[in-house]
Order: sequence, then C-alpha cells, then structure tokens
Amino acid sequence: STSTSKPINKHDATASPATNCLHPLHRKFTRLPHLAGTEQNLRYAEQIGKEWLEFGLDTVEMVPYDVLLSYPNKSQPNYISIVDQFGSEVFNTSLAEPVPEGYEDVSNIVPPYSAFSAKGQPEGDLVYVNYGRTEDFSQLEKDMGINVTGKIVIIRYGKIFRGNKVTNAMLAGAKGVILFSDPADYCAVGVQSYPHGWNLPGGGAQRGNIFNMNGAGDPLTPGYPAKEYTYRSNLENVVGLPNIPVHPIGYNDAIHLNMGGQIPPNNWKGTLDVSYRIGPGFTGDFKSQKVRMNIHTNNQVTRIHNVIGRIRGALEPDRYVILGGHRDAWVFGGIDPMSGAAVVHEIVRTFGLLLRKGWRPRRTIIFASWDAEEFGLQGSTEWAEDNAKMLQERAVGYVNADSAIEGMYTLRVDCTPSLHTLVYDLTKQIASPEEGEEGVSLYESWHKRDNWTNDRDAPRISKLGSGSDFEAYFIRLGIAAARARYTKNKETERYSSYPVYHSVYETFELVDKFYDPTFKRLRAVAQVRAGLIFQLAESQLLPLDVNQYADSLGKYAQSIVQLAQRHPQEMTKYEVSFDALFSAVGNFSVAARDFHERLQTLNREDPMPVRVMNDQLMYLERAFIDPMGLPGRPFYRHVIFAPSSHNKYAGESFPGIYDALFDIKNSADTAKAWEEVKHQISIAAFTVHAAGMTLTPPA
Amino acid sequence: STSTSKPINKHDATASPATNCLHPLHRKFTRLPHLAGTEQNLRYAEQIGKEWLEFGLDTVEMVPYDVLLSYPNKSQPNYISIVDQFGSEVFNTSLAEPVPEGYEDVSNIVPPYSAFSAKGQPEGDLVYVNYGRTEDFSQLEKDMGINVTGKIVIIRYGKIFRGNKVTNAMLAGAKGVILFSDPADYCAVGVQSYPHGWNLPGGGAQRGNIFNMNGAGDPLTPGYPAKEYTYRSNLENVVGLPNIPVHPIGYNDAIHLNMGGQIPPNNWKGTLDVSYRIGPGFTGDFKSQKVRMNIHTNNQVTRIHNVIGRIRGALEPDRYVILGGHRDAWVFGGIDPMSGAAVVHEIVRTFGLLLRKGWRPRRTIIFASWDAEEFGLQGSTEWAEDNAKMLQERAVGYVNADSAIEGMYTLRVDCTPSLHTLVYDLTKQIASPEEGEEGVSLYESWHKRDNWTNDRDAPRISKLGSGSDFEAYFIRLGIAAARARYTKNKETERYSSYPVYHSVYETFELVDKFYDPTFKRLRAVAQVRAGLIFQLAESQLLPLDVNQYADSLGKYAQSIVQLAQRHPQEMTKYEVSFDALFSAVGNFSVAARDFHERLQTLNREDPMPVRVMNDQLMYLERAFIDPMGLPGRPFYRHVIFAPSSHNKYAGESFPGIYDALFDIKNSADTAKAWEEVKHQISIAAFTVHAAGMTLTPPA
Repeated sequence: STSTSKPINKHDATASPATNCLHPLHRKFTRLPHLAGTEQNLRYAEQIGKEWLEFGLDTVEMVPYDVLLSYPNKSQPNYISIVDQFGSEVFNTSLAEPVPEGYEDVSNIVPPYSAFSAKGQPEGDLVYVNYGRTEDFSQLEKDMGINVTGKIVIIRYGKIFRGNKVTNAMLAGAKGVILFSDPADYCAVGVQSYPHGWNLPGGGAQRGNIFNMNGAGDPLTPGYPAKEYTYRSNLENVVGLPNIPVHPIGYNDAIHLNMGGQIPPNNWKGTLDVSYRIGPGFTGDFKSQKVRMNIHTNNQVTRIHNVIGRIRGALEPDRYVILGGHRDAWVFGGIDPMSGAAVVHEIVRTFGLLLRKGWRPRRTIIFASWDAEEFGLQGSTEWAEDNAKMLQERAVGYVNADSAIEGMYTLRVDCTPSLHTLVYDLTKQIASPEEGEEGVSLYESWHKRDNWTNDRDAPRISKLGSGSDFEAYFIRLGIAAARARYTKNKETERYSSYPVYHSVYETFELVDKFYDPTFKRLRAVAQVRAGLIFQLAESQLLPLDVNQYADSLGKYAQSIVQLAQRHPQEMTKYEVSFDALFSAVGNFSVAARDFHERLQTLNREDPMPVRVMNDQLMYLERAFIDPMGLPGRPFYRHVIFAPSSHNKYAGESFPGIYDALFDIKNSADTAKAWEEVKHQISIAAFTVHAAGMTLTPPA
Repeated sequence: STSTSKPINKHDATASPATNCLHPLHRKFTRLPHLAGTEQNLRYAEQIGKEWLEFGLDTVEMVPYDVLLSYPNKSQPNYISIVDQFGSEVFNTSLAEPVPEGYEDVSNIVPPYSAFSAKGQPEGDLVYVNYGRTEDFSQLEKDMGINVTGKIVIIRYGKIFRGNKVTNAMLAGAKGVILFSDPADYCAVGVQSYPHGWNLPGGGAQRGNIFNMNGAGDPLTPGYPAKEYTYRSNLENVVGLPNIPVHPIGYNDAIHLNMGGQIPPNNWKGTLDVSYRIGPGFTGDFKSQKVRMNIHTNNQVTRIHNVIGRIRGALEPDRYVILGGHRDAWVFGGIDPMSGAAVVHEIVRTFGLLLRKGWRPRRTIIFASWDAEEFGLQGSTEWAEDNAKMLQERAVGYVNADSAIEGMYTLRVDCTPSLHTLVYDLTKQIASPEEGEEGVSLYESWHKRDNWTNDRDAPRISKLGSGSDFEAYFIRLGIAAARARYTKNKETERYSSYPVYHSVYETFELVDKFYDPTFKRLRAVAQVRAGLIFQLAESQLLPLDVNQYADSLGKYAQSIVQLAQRHPQEMTKYEVSFDALFSAVGNFSVAARDFHERLQTLNREDPMPVRVMNDQLMYLERAFIDPMGLPGRPFYRHVIFAPSSHNKYAGESFPGIYDALFDIKNSADTAKAWEEVKHQISIAAFTVHAAGMTLTPPA
C-alpha cells in the first residue's frame, strides 16, 4: 500500500558494490593520518576527486572553507600532572599513545587532545562525576552535597556526547575537565586489547571536539559559509566554545588519579582497579597533592576542503539526492570515517559503471566528501550554509555515510519516519552478510538479531540525533535524511561506541582482522546506502511514506504527553492541555491517508501532476522547520526532531516541549515554566497542523 | 528581449473592469463604518464572500483569527486638556470630528485615537519636535539643547510613519505624545476643506495605529497564527507596544497648544497661525499651565475575519498568485481601503466572467480581503504565518490592493525589480484615464507626468517599503510583490498622504466628487492590478525579469558604497571594503544574463524544463531571504529590502548595511560600529552571490 512497494528498479545499484573493491579502497585511504586542515587530508581529497571524475561523474569540484580548527601546540605538549605540596610534578600523564605495529615510522599522529579546549594550567582538587550527565551533576550536588566550583572534574567517557559533559561541568563551575576511558565502557568482556583484539589498550585515549554550539558549523561564521570574504566574529563573542581546559586520558593514566571522599552509588563505578571515590581531592598520605592540567592547544583558522561530485539528473536536474560522509580522521580513521568513505567511493564507482551503460538518474545525485567533521561537522555545515537557498528548494533527501561499522552484529538505521518503508523494502532485497545466513535477507537477519525488540513487527529504526554530517541537512534545513551502519548487539555489549573509537588504533587492520574480515558487512552497508540514493534519485514517485510520518507523530505525541502527566496536579492547576497537538496529529493523519489515496489514482503519464505530488512529498520534511528555531538553539529548527539538549548524539522528539518539561523541576518560577510548556505545545500543534495542510490538494 | 515582450494574452482581463460597476460597488461598501473587529466589518466580509462565490470563484472561505486590537473606552472618552495651576481644565480638545452631511444618523463612528496607545493621564510641559523624525529629535537635543525626558511632546503628522514618531519620542524619554495635523501638511493651496473640497477641515484628525513591532502582525502571537489554541504572550512581554499615552488632534485644537521657548528653524514651521515655539511649556500669563492627556484606550483580543477566494490553476494548481487588500476601515474607508477593495471586487467579477467563458488560469489565483490592516497589517500577517509553509514553496507573486487612489495626477507603482518590465509592458496596453488624453496609453501619460524624473527613459518605479499588507509576503517570505495606485503630483503637492487620510471625511462623496468622478482612475488602477495577476497566473514563463533585478542590485550597491564613502578616513582605518559585494553583484549579473539567454532557447513544448526554469524565477526572490533576519528585526528577513528603521513607509535597500552605517555617528565605540558594517557587507555579499547561484543551471 505504499509508493515504494513496486519492484526495485532493474538498474538498481544495490547489487553492485564489491567486497574486493572495498578492501583495497579501505587500505588505500587509511595508510596515513589525515586530520582536517592537514596537507595529507588535502591530498586524499585531490585523489578522491580525481578518481570520482575517472569513475564518470559529470562534475567534481573542490570546495574550500576557512574555518576555526584547534590543534595541540607542537612545542608545548598537553598533559596532566599530580603535583606535591612543593609544586613538583610527581606524576605526568603520557604524551602520546603507543603507536601500533607497522605504523612506527608514520609522522603527524596528533596526540590525544580535546579540540577547542581553552588553554590554561588550572590546579586543584579532583571531583569524580561519573559520565558527567545532567543527572550525574544533579546527583552530585543534591544527594552528595558536593559543589564543583573551582574544582577540576574527572568524568568518564561514554553514554553522551563529550561536549555535553564539558558544558555541564562549566555550568557547575568546574575550572577544568579530565575525560577518561573506563575499561567498563571501552573493553568488551573476553576480548583482548588491540592489536590482539578490538578492545582499547590502556595507553589509548579518545580524541574529540568538545564544541557544543548546536549546529553552527564554523564557530566564527554562524549562519554563513566561511569564505574568504566572510566576516568573522571575535573569538570572545563565540557561544559554545569552552572557557576551561579539557583533556582526555586512557585508563592506564586514569588509575593514578584516585581520590578520597565519599563512596558513590554502584552505577558510578567502572572496572578500574580503584575504589571510585568522589573526592574532592586526594586523601591520606596524598592529601596535599593537587592535580594540574597543562593545556596549550591553539585555535586556528584553517583551510578545509570538501569534494563535491555530481551526476546530472535527466528529467529533474533541479532535484537533489545527496550522499555525504566525511573524510577527515583523528588519525588513520580505520573505522571513523574511512569505513564509510570507502563505501561512498565504491558507490561512486558503481554509479559510474551504470552511467557508462547509458543510465542516467531522473534526479541529480550529489556525492560529498566532507572535511572537518571531527571539529564540529564543519565541512558539511559550511556547504549547507553556502548552498542553503538551493537546498531548501531542491533537495529531496540526504543519506549520511560516516563509519559503516561500529560493531559486528547487525544493521542499525536512524532516519526520518517517511523513509522507514523504503529502508524495510530495500533491506528485503539485500543479502545478510553474516556467515551461516546464506539465503537470508538483511531484513530478516536484522529483524531476528534485533531481539531486544522482537515483539515488534519490524526491526527498530531510531530517530536521528546528531554527531554526524546529516545535522545541518535534517535539523536545520528539513531535508529527509537517513544513516545506516553495522552495529553491535545492544543487549549484550554495554560498552559505549566501539572501544578504540578516536584512538590511534583505528587502523585498516582493526577492520580487516576483527570487524569485517570479508568486507561483506561494509558491502551490505554500501548496498543500503546506495539503494536509498538510487531509489530517491530514480523512482518516478518519491519513495517517501507520509503515513509512516503520521504514525510516528502519533507515537511521539503519546510519549510527550506521558512525560507531562508525571505532574498531574500541575497540569490541572496551570491548565496544560495537549488537545491542540493531538488534534493536529489527527488532521495530519487524515491528510496523509488522503494524500496516499490520491497517489494511487495519479496519472503517471502526465509529468506535471507527478511533479506536483512529488513536490508535496519533498517539502513535507521542510514543513517541520520553524525559522524561529528552538529556544536558545537557532540552528536547530526542526520542530519534531532535535539532538537532545543533554546528549547531542541522541534524537529527541518534540524537543521544544521536552526541554520545557525538563526545566520544570529546576525552575524557580513554576508558573512561568509551565507557561513555556504551553507555548511549546502551541508551536508543535501549529507546525504539525501546517505540515499536514501541505499534503492536502494544493488548490 | 524579455520574457514578457510577447503580446498580452487575448483573454487578458485588463480590459474588463468597468467604471459603471466600480461606482456602485464603492458606494455599497462605504455606507457604514467598518472598523476591524466590529460586527459591520464582519457583515461586509460575509457579503463579499457571498458575492465572490456568485461571481464564480471555485472556493471562498472566511478565515478568523483572534488578535490584539485597541479601542477607545466608550464610557471614558480620550482628550487632551490645558490645566491651570489649580488643576482645572481650562481647555479640552474635541471628542469627535463633526460628522459630514448625510452621515448624521450613522452610529459607531470611532473618534480619532491612536490605537495601542498606553492608558494614562500624564501632565507636564509640551515640547514641539516638528515631524518627530530621528533627525528632528537629534536637532532638538544637539542644536537646541532640549531634553524631553518627562515632557509631553507634540509632533506634527507627516513625512514618516506615526509609529516611528512615537518610538523616537519614547527613546528620548517623553511621557506622552500629541500628534497633530498641520495645515501645511494636510491642506493643499487653493483647495477648500471637505465637503467643499478635499482638504482636511480644522475639526478633522488622523486616526492610526502606533504599533511599531516590525512585521509581527498580532502582537501576542509573533511568528505564529493567532488561532484559538495559540499561546499568547503576556502583554508586558510584548516588544513594540508604546508604554506612553499618544493622541491625535486636528489643527483647530492644535492652535491652542501654543508654547513659549526657542524659535525653531523655518523648516520646523507649518502654517498654523501660531509662532511655532519649541517650549518646554507655556509662557507669559500661561506659564503655570500644563498639558494633561486623558487616555483610556483599551487593548482587547478580538476576532477578525479574512475572506479568501480561489481560482484553481489548470496546469500548476500548486503555484499561487495572490491579490490581497484590506477591508477594514477607520470609519467609512472612502479612499482607504474601499477604493482598493472595490477594485479587488471588480477584478473578481471580471475573472469570474472569464471562468464562465471556459477560461481557467495556468496557476492558482488567490483573492484576499484582509481584516485589521489598520491595526498593524494583522489579517494579512496572520494568514501569511498560517500558510507560510505553503506560501514559501508555492507563491509566485503578491499584488497588493490597498487604496487605489491617493491623488488625481498619475500612476504610482512600488514593486520588486523583477516586476518592473511587466509593469511597463502592461501600462503600455492600458489607456490613460485622464481627460484630454484619449488615445494615450497609461504608460505615456505616466511617463510625461512623472516629470520630476523626465530625464529617465521610463517612469520611476519605487522600492517597496511597508505600511500595507504586502509586508509579510515580500519582506518576511520573499514573494515577488507589487503595489499600484493613482497618486498626486509630487513636485507641486507637498502635503503628506492625502489631506483627509484616516478621518471621518473619507467618504464615497470624496471620491465621487473630487478624486475620480468618472471612476476611470480606479478602473486604470484595476487594469494594472488585474493585469499583473493575470500575467503572473497565465504566462507560460513567469513574467519576472532577472536582468532588471541585476541592474537594481548594482544601483543599490553603488548607493550604499557612496553612503559609506562619506567616511573615507574610517573606511581606510577599519579596512572596510565593498569589493565582495560588488563581486557578488557582478556574479549575479552574469548569472542573470546567462539565465535569460537559456530562456530564449528553452523548449516550451516540454513541460518539465519549463517548470524548472519557472521555479528558478519564482524562487529568486526567496533567495534574498535570510532566516536570521535583520539585526533586531527577526520578521524583516529580506536582505535587499526592508522598511526604513526610521520610517516604516519608506523602503531601504541593503537595510542591514544602511542601518549599520547610520549607527556610526551615534556609536560610543566607533571600531565596533565599523565591525558591524563589515559584518553586514559580508551578509549582503553572500546573499547576492547565493541568489545569483540559484539562476545557474541547476545541475
């Protein structure tokens, strides 16, 4: 009963990506470190662009921007010390990770650091704040009675985006942040450390940016592309850059930072061989010791390069389908991002083959190799800002191609509701890459393995959060978006991300030996991503399912009202009603159903009515964009979805209402806080209603 | 060489509007006062809707909103007193205007008032501030050394929007504002007062809103339609509502408010028989007298009604061409707005006749009778907010239909640059309505009469400012827009607006006896408005001239750089360059020229490429919209045009740069002020460049 239930087109590219091409591709692009803004990353860009042209794309261009990046000072390394009462350093954290075998001669490996950290040498007592989540800081203050003002906090990595940890620490008054990888979160049970297995070694540490500027891209040019002539804000006027030093360490170093003080609850304890005290400060013989951070990281305006390739659409050249993923890596990028970049490269190759056979898609396809994703999605955001006027009128869909694997278990898809049906249809046409599952479709394998939700009639698809390059396209511009990758078993594997994430140990060998020795998982992910692009570019009617959007809106509305109903007395007292929102969802559902019915009887021979209905499909996602933005987050403009204010990686539905409800308990003025809830319900109701109206007959 | 140079379509509706229909129509809709929010205005709405259906529109709907309006308190009239030292009222201004002959039995004539005035009874000394312009207040403070803090200011009407006068007075610290009509500005030489002529009688006064909230529409629901469920701000949080009392008076009353103090420069003197002293306060025998304002006006959430009619487009039902004008009037609305509303009604009738002959336009036409324009463009803005998601994807053009006449001399057109060519082409097909100009086209008559610019090769078309219902469509949403009306001779007639503007003397007879006895001028305006709508709705290729936009951008850039070059030393010192802007204009011009060339070779038989290029034409205006808005004016989002920050009625080009330059001389921090100029140049350069890019081949 959906627009995508027709057979997949015979030219379908999903069968083409080849494991024997992915393997050398991945090898080729992971030999050297290629941090954003470095010469090697430009060389890879040039090589990619050249090959895309050779593959047969119509045009390929290098698109530079000059953005604010952040690098360690080469002559003054960053480290953390324990200092005694005389100020002498009695322990220093390591300056670099032990380099993996075979890479000993490689230069330009950037040591672990927190990009956009403030410079400084704060000294003080440590306080441990678990994962540094909003609830952790709240528990620390309310249950344990500890104020971190003027303290250095030590926070374990995991659960949420590191930038949120730093924001929380700054809000709580900390003067420095140490981030560490706890074995509980970065070592799977029964697995050896790299190179003997895929666990994080004790000397490894997680790099990463701690910029939390909610979708701005380049910090100095929010809202506009960072071109040569573009006006740049003064650094001191930039919101979202941390004003305290931050530094990441591995668990070999973390074990030395073993404080005294209260014993925390069990869920604050990892598996380091220490007692996990809260602090503040050391105890016993070490009572007079302090911790000093030595951070000399510099912010620097640096040129970055996106590679943009195009296949011109035959019938609707002004409709864009975008496959974008980043190229820049913290070091080699074995998983992040080159497992994804290899997939993009292979998809370009296979589409090039189709072009040579005479095929040309109905719509234009744009391939993007983004730069500086690791510094806050900068390449993709600047290009979105540069092309916003065209994208908002013309973009049909955006498929993200960051890391293709983060585990060895099954498929993971996050996408806008209107793409669910296409994802299910596609994965039914793709073979499972798992050994022993010959003849089983990816869909079946995924459904079976997704056993934590096996009461569902389809495998779970999650909401898009952020943390990768789709953000500006989906959350700011309202372009239907999807991401797909291979993931771990969430039920049994409790570590965060994959263990060696953002360390020097993300190598070709990590993938080749452990994550995907046959490269079949990469191929399956390539088939999903290629299939999405192919169908979006080629289907006469756009494969977007408006009924599924209606269903999802209904669920999100149910879930937000349940959150509100935790305050039944206040709901009554302040006359808080969700009626308008439910009424809007009802109207939307009727409009979606009617739209779908009209689609069945559409005369597909007549190009104009086809274009009219396709435009309604394309612009539906756009209709959820509110130019006013979410409160305090002007570049998060999607009323239905936003990255959680508490964890940028997670998607929140009805984020305006959610955040207003979240603020209730911390608000000094309850009546005012509920007014904001009512305000946000009103905005959500209007937006859903108005989006539904775009599906009604246009005149 | 333009897309509109082909002959006007034979079905063209411009020939059809009939003077013998306009006359009784105008009579019918000006019999009774129909202030926004009153029952009579709802009755007219119902009658208009009913007749539009009878004329043959496909659908007509009444669209209500509940918005904040402002009315005098019926039991406590507003007036201004002179009080003596004992507090006794020795003079009171009149409570109402003398009612014109024939209307003695009419009830519900609202007395002159300033809508959205604060309530209050401030008492104090008067200070005269000429027209209350930014430069008048500046001159008062700097040249005359007078501070108005705690004073009541008296300001003559004219030159700028009254809301800007009140804003300026508030910023200067005044505690009340008296607005008066000076004969110099509201009486033409040699003309008698109404009813013997068209001058303002001494007992007449100008009503009007003094709300200055920059495009917000309903003050309580900025950004969203004022529906029943919509969240409403608390009044105290509303920006732009005056917090001091304001009241308008006529010149019979004004003559009593004759202060002492300094003699102002001659250009501050009107033609009242007083000495035009500045104050503060009275002098001589009257030294102890004060002025007291007695203002009891109430703000009130009130239901208003737009009437929306549609003709469904045959080929592109999802492309909208809008003809909108307001219906609400301060009293009878003889000129404002019923001379325009009669034109809309007559155009609907003639288009209905065409429909009955079997015609159906290519695109959808929407007719709107807006409510509550007089209270800050509320009906049109709420509908724009309600339908923003559809309008931004689908609207091709907006033609405004406020007052069709403000003089008896010649045509006046304000429109977006891309419509200039269509306006010229159309007016060449329309006959001059002037006696003795038989066989002369409207274009020729207009060109000849527009003698203050007779060195030009075409009659002048001005930039759109604001002050009527096109604002949300053009300035907020970026829809190509135009307005046309008959106007006075600017060279010889120096009064502001037309003399009886917003008084009770705006009657049917005013038009029938003085402004347009044959109704031929109204018909000519109807032909222009209908012709614009017809061509926008019916031309296969949209009649929008991108080359003209390029030309205009070049002129605006020249003019803004000349403004900056008044500070040559500072331009050098702060390294202010307009190179990026000129480079962007250059790129835009090349793109426009190339686009035009491709248009010549377009295969018009193939519907898809025609649609693709039409979409580029349609979305060009949209490309000038910046979702970030202008500084401090979030609903003014057009980077090329905005209402002047100093006079809402006037259009300013490159308003962001203009305002930044304007602020230079008042800024405490010159370096920072020039930084803002550079910031705004950068935004303008990006926007022009990006808009030009939308005209390049789409893939």
